[in-house]
Amino acid sequence: MPISFKIDEDVMAMEYAVRGPIPHKALQMKRQGRDVIFCNIGNPHALGQKPLTYYRQVLSLLEDPFRIVRERSIMSKLDAADRMPYQILDLCDELLGKMETGLGAYTESKGLLFIREAVAAYIDRRDSVANPDFVPADPDRVFVTNGASEGAKYVIEMLLADRQDGIMIPIPQYPLYSAAIRKHGGVQVNYYPDEDAGWTLSREMLESAYGSAQADGVCVKCIVAINPGNPTGAVLDRQSIVDVIGFAEAHGLAIIADEVYQENTYGAEFLSFARMLGKRDVPLFSLHSVSKGFHGECGHRGGYLEVRNAPRIEGCDSSFIDVLLKQVSVSLCSNTAGQVLTYLLVSPPEEESEIYDQFILEKTTILDDLHAKAAMIKEAFKKMDGVECFGEIGAMYLFPRLNKLPEGSTDFDYCMALLEETGLCTVNGSGFGQSEGTQHLRIAFLPPREMLEDVLPRWIAFHNDYVCA
Amino acid sequence: MPISFKIDEDVMAMEYAVRGPIPHKALQMKRQGRDVIFCNIGNPHALGQKPLTYYRQVLSLLEDPFRIVRERSIMSKLDAADRMPYQILDLCDELLGKMETGLGAYTESKGLLFIREAVAAYIDRRDSVANPDFVPADPDRVFVTNGASEGAKYVIEMLLADRQDGIMIPIPQYPLYSAAIRKHGGVQVNYYPDEDAGWTLSREMLESAYGSAQADGVCVKCIVAINPGNPTGAVLDRQSIVDVIGFAEAHGLAIIADEVYQENTYGAEFLSFARMLGKRDVPLFSLHSVSKGFHGECGHRGGYLEVRNAPRIEGCDSSFIDVLLKQVSVSLCSNTAGQVLTYLLVSPPEEESEIYDQFILEKTTILDDLHAKAAMIKEAFKKMDGVECFGEIGAMYLFPRLNKLPEGSTDFDYCMALLEETGLCTVNGSGFGQSEGTQHLRIAFLPPREMLEDVLPRWIAFHNDYVCA
Repeated sequence: MPISFKIDEDVMAMEYAVRGPIPHKALQMKRQGRDVIFCNIGNPHALGQKPLTYYRQVLSLLEDPFRIVRERSIMSKLDAADRMPYQILDLCDELLGKMETGLGAYTESKGLLFIREAVAAYIDRRDSVANPDFVPADPDRVFVTNGASEGAKYVIEMLLADRQDGIMIPIPQYPLYSAAIRKHGGVQVNYYPDEDAGWTLSREMLESAYGSAQADGVCVKCIVAINPGNPTGAVLDRQSIVDVIGFAEAHGLAIIADEVYQENTYGAEFLSFARMLGKRDVPLFSLHSVSKGFHGECGHRGGYLEVRNAPRIEGCDSSFIDVLLKQVSVSLCSNTAGQVLTYLLVSPPEEESEIYDQFILEKTTILDDLHAKAAMIKEAFKKMDGVECFGEIGAMYLFPRLNKLPEGSTDFDYCMALLEETGLCTVNGSGFGQSEGTQHLRIAFLPPREMLEDVLPRWIAFHNDYVCA
Repeated sequence: MPISFKIDEDVMAMEYAVRGPIPHKALQMKRQGRDVIFCNIGNPHALGQKPLTYYRQVLSLLEDPFRIVRERSIMSKLDAADRMPYQILDLCDELLGKMETGLGAYTESKGLLFIREAVAAYIDRRDSVANPDFVPADPDRVFVTNGASEGAKYVIEMLLADRQDGIMIPIPQYPLYSAAIRKHGGVQVNYYPDEDAGWTLSREMLESAYGSAQADGVCVKCIVAINPGNPTGAVLDRQSIVDVIGFAEAHGLAIIADEVYQENTYGAEFLSFARMLGKRDVPLFSLHSVSKGFHGECGHRGGYLEVRNAPRIEGCDSSFIDVLLKQVSVSLCSNTAGQVLTYLLVSPPEEESEIYDQFILEKTTILDDLHAKAAMIKEAFKKMDGVECFGEIGAMYLFPRLNKLPEGSTDFDYCMALLEETGLCTVNGSGFGQSEGTQHLRIAFLPPREMLEDVLPRWIAFHNDYVCA
């Protein structure tokens, strides 16, 4: 009989549906030899998306620096197609020079300085165009992290000083936020983007959520915005962002802007919170990642956190930046392969360069393909009784509403049955939170088209059968 | 005027000396063009240690799988020395087959199954020899993590349920433990290995620390053992380990066994806690890492946590394993390059294989060199007035006692002056904790010999001057 321990109640209470019972069941089915399509998570390479040649050639050479010399020396013996481009070799020499100690050494805890400088330069290029209120990014306020999640968790942990401290999150939300708030003993304060209006935000909706929380004695510290949305895929319009910033400013809140899907807008305009913030003195924590976009390098765990208007810490002489630095120091540094990918994400090949055309071709192919697959799935929804899907296509997800589930059935039941019947693994809407009385699911639009062509008709049949039961 | 926030007091109170003011000063000096030798941290590659060819050739090919095909096709055009060994190419094909989705996809949150199986097989090979009480490791109770720190933090966070819960740690200790205990609102309960007896442990010393804590109302949940020691370098003898296990069993405690330096014993026998535990029903959390040993792959952040006798969770139907899985799920998975290195760490090339001789040569050279450098530094201590260094050489550190610091001077002052005077960056003993009235420093014995030959005489001169002041 093993001994029994009381453990931290906040850790115990935390939930994380994206890797919860449905994906767990899917894994079991796969081990039993069943065909499973993992659409429960935005994991592009797992569904056949290829890594970008540029990224991997660089990473590969940096892992084995002796090869750079070798590639130069064997060049003349090889056919043109087998040669490593000079531009890649030169870049690797340059990067190894800047890194000084290669991929095997701990870096500064914030990440290598030249990478943080490149991140700042990327933000500046992105946000300075036609922007009179432009404020440049500061490399010393950039933290290169193991994916974006790590940065979010550090900030949430710090902000939650008391058990009545709250953080506002959109519903539905990516469950990292609810999990981190729960784990660190804070209060989750929900606000509800308007689904029927394409998941837009308004000042009134934010004030209403804030007012209710205040009435319950909650001290709201921060608002999280996810743009483009996860799980909704919705791209926030200018007014929604202006509303969030004005709201945060009025109440002295910090903003966490989760912008990891900023390249996944499929033609819609992406406006960063940093850009829209301009010179206003609102603390802003912006997140980006190598896992999404057209990169899909989830396994490498790269990303960054950029801080603007870092708050002072009450009762002492430190700023948020100092304490964040202490936080990241205990983990020593984020992994170096992820740091390099973060560098490459913010430093695409220059136009007219030897490798530019291939890079653009690969990028465009991936993004066009994602868009087309999302459209295919949306088309299928039209053939499913009582399924509605709002908003433009963004991120890597669709979040349809299931209006006609049979009495007593939940979206969890539906998704579990869908998995068992068709092998399609999605996540129930309740895993992300949803307006009371509604039911949804989230599907990542990542499987190859031929896989979708096979499964969508079976899903339609399953669905129309399920809702008639 | 930026706004001011109250933040989490536990995060605020946490300290982490290894990356504290002295290394910070060192970094400033380096930016100003001064020569600095970073011995404040076990970061071998930063001080010129080369990565193992085997590790990096594999990692390099996995990052760019197209190269595996290419290497085979260009083989015939190359000189023998330029060819990639068949064994490496075959291994990479095999690994990519097992990984299914390459390095770019999220893996199972615990880490790839075949890697966890390889970890379990490694533990079994290590611990089963001449061991009638051998209990095999279970791959489902192995978690592949971003370095060893991550695993330790998860376990500590879970164990600390109440503010009076305590964890016993050796003094001196690696400050990850004090930081994690402080951050998660628990009580640090110190026990004091016997410095003059080579940092050995005894049942009495553990009982004494436990008794005092209990008298203060602390509920001790766990004892941390670091073997070989950090910062002391001491290798625990059989009796010390037996004492810790007997003590934990008697009081119903869990054990965290930090064994990241298990390859750094330089001839002394390493006995794992898992081996010594045998069939006894004591919860054991063992840690290992790719950052140390002869690998030194710190930047890649690879490692594992192995759990034995996972406790049940009080008041519910879950075990510690279930909740740990939930914890790691929120971070999705550890980075894949670190996972691959963890696999390679536990899967060295087979004897008589094409690449075995080179691997062994590189390994032996690194370990012999480390040992020789430690001996050089220990010799230098003999020429420093009032410096004593106890215990056999282990890990990557020496932790000499400074018996003759001038009145009013602390080891912090000493280390700061040493840095400013000689460029040698060490960490003051107080950063790790030490018996009252003693002063120490920790030095990583990693710099190249010629660097040591240059700095040691300057250190001796500095020291003898400092203690006479």
